[in-house]
Amino acid sequence: MRTLYVELGERAYPIYIGRGLLEQGLYTRHLDSAQALIVTNTTLSDLYLDTVRRNLARVQCDVVQLPDGEAYKNLRELEKIFDALVDGHHDRYSTIIALGGGVVGDMAGFAAACYQRGIQFIQLPTTLLAQVDSSVGGKTAVNHPRAKNMIGAFHQPVAVVIDTDVLESLPVREYRAGLAEVIKYGLIRDAEFFDWLEARAPALSERDPEVLREAIYRSCHNKSEVVAGDERERGDRALLNLGHTFGHAIETATGYNSWLHGEAVAAGMVMAADMSVREGRMGAPARDRIVSLFRQLSLPTAPPALCPEEFRSLMGQDKKVERGQMRLVLMDGIGEACVTADFEPQALDATLDAMRSAS
Amino acid sequence: MRTLYVELGERAYPIYIGRGLLEQGLYTRHLDSAQALIVTNTTLSDLYLDTVRRNLARVQCDVVQLPDGEAYKNLRELEKIFDALVDGHHDRYSTIIALGGGVVGDMAGFAAACYQRGIQFIQLPTTLLAQVDSSVGGKTAVNHPRAKNMIGAFHQPVAVVIDTDVLESLPVREYRAGLAEVIKYGLIRDAEFFDWLEARAPALSERDPEVLREAIYRSCHNKSEVVAGDERERGDRALLNLGHTFGHAIETATGYNSWLHGEAVAAGMVMAADMSVREGRMGAPARDRIVSLFRQLSLPTAPPALCPEEFRSLMGQDKKVERGQMRLVLMDGIGEACVTADFEPQALDATLDAMRSAS
Repeated sequence: MRTLYVELGERAYPIYIGRGLLEQGLYTRHLDSAQALIVTNTTLSDLYLDTVRRNLARVQCDVVQLPDGEAYKNLRELEKIFDALVDGHHDRYSTIIALGGGVVGDMAGFAAACYQRGIQFIQLPTTLLAQVDSSVGGKTAVNHPRAKNMIGAFHQPVAVVIDTDVLESLPVREYRAGLAEVIKYGLIRDAEFFDWLEARAPALSERDPEVLREAIYRSCHNKSEVVAGDERERGDRALLNLGHTFGHAIETATGYNSWLHGEAVAAGMVMAADMSVREGRMGAPARDRIVSLFRQLSLPTAPPALCPEEFRSLMGQDKKVERGQMRLVLMDGIGEACVTADFEPQALDATLDAMRSAS
Repeated sequence: MRTLYVELGERAYPIYIGRGLLEQGLYTRHLDSAQALIVTNTTLSDLYLDTVRRNLARVQCDVVQLPDGEAYKNLRELEKIFDALVDGHHDRYSTIIALGGGVVGDMAGFAAACYQRGIQFIQLPTTLLAQVDSSVGGKTAVNHPRAKNMIGAFHQPVAVVIDTDVLESLPVREYRAGLAEVIKYGLIRDAEFFDWLEARAPALSERDPEVLREAIYRSCHNKSEVVAGDERERGDRALLNLGHTFGHAIETATGYNSWLHGEAVAAGMVMAADMSVREGRMGAPARDRIVSLFRQLSLPTAPPALCPEEFRSLMGQDKKVERGQMRLVLMDGIGEACVTADFEPQALDATLDAMRSAS
């Protein structure tokens, strides 16, 4: 097992990465009282719920099962978590345990941020995407019907426990979608990591456990450095949104139920790369390397067919919009990204047009 | 106009108290961009909405009108605020302006805490209760059907603007309910203020403007000192909940729609005083002074008829419950209160029994 720390002063917490960690149950040492609520989904409960519950046999352990999927990440489903907390008389020393992917983690974390104005929570991420990205950093949220992650809170977990064994049973689409966020760290701040990933594309495709564990470790290391430097996204943390303004538009336009988040982000990163080339920030060969790696990993390299007007309108709902001005994460090369409003609207139009014909 | 400051470092903010402040519109200087959303209720919008909107003529100013009353302080109604923010393309520099009483302030503040994971908000409290208590200190929340204020956040406003002229048109029941929270400050930490209020009971009953402004100033002064010393209620801030464990049980039992919050708190403070006497903490004369002042101000001095078992069960849902143990704010005398789990269950039973026959 390897351990990383997210250095956030009194809100600092460990990330444990290793095999069999759900079984070992070291997360129980982070409970603050004899009450816990496991939040999971109907798919995962068959796989891991009993294991986790066994480790919590000596405390009051309630369970909420949410329906599976981004389409259910809304206020209505969130109420189920509050109902369970109230019904079980959970007090402010209780702990929510998020056992699941990004949707479960975001909802459980947001419920923890709000219940009694804040109780603690532990992340047990069970998808690659949640392990390398959403479980670390304290961003929690639900979706608004017309805008993704629009209602939420910054609320850090007290521990993140990454059991890499769970990836063996992850559906292939979910697995690939997670790789998109792994590659993102290479693109925004770690060129050496991108090279490393590029050289190991076949091993990644085959879920080589050693390569995967190293990729997760390096991803979490990058994420925790960024979060420690800018917890509330007043600066560099926004770089983690590479491809996300495009990606959120794709997810919202398709009703949160046909594209996985990581898939939408992959297409979005290609769009950001394409725009960066058109803006003269990055050479075309860099973009082509990205597209090539995504193809090797069977990730999307273009958005679905949407009319450019709708796409632009949805992008205008993004949280990075400031005082009416759209801001995007663009690239100055592999490993170098920036948040900027300094781009030609025509470059965006050209990218949308080009991608429309590509899809 | 008099100004107080809530000293909370980078979250510090002013409380302005004076006549005609809604008309003067000094709150506009606290906007951070050219976007604002006024949250108000259907009763108040007839009275003050045009005045406030006139001061915001030069910015994008949207409006949400919520139904009036504690019964609507829930997640469903909260969605209306998020809908308006998304529809108006409000970005993270937008400002929510809460124009109303405690319900509007709590909901607008909680929406501000969650929208885009936190935008700023301004309190324009229009009831006495909101002016002396709920608008100051950053506690925001909605109710769960079975537990009051159970879902919320600590989120400080950027300014509180108290226009004392609005109290002239406040319905008499609402006005009296606000006085309960004024008296609370005397009871928990300011005996001299209690004496001052006792000596001015007739003037308070008649809404003497000078006496009222001084009472509001001293209440806000007490509140801001407590909040500055313990923003997140890890210690002394809990004293502000004198009478509230009893009061919340009354509000929840009666469906949030027949007792006003201040009325329930008044009855709750009498119950806390009665228990303090039974526990030998406080002499009976002190309790009788409290009851006498409440009678002069036509405030309730006993709860509605509820069976003791139900009352105890509802009290067990309180946020002050810790590791299964109920904690109450009790009094050691007028001006001295403490949070304690150290009381005889029989004393609580006796108070519930005595009050049951009193009601």
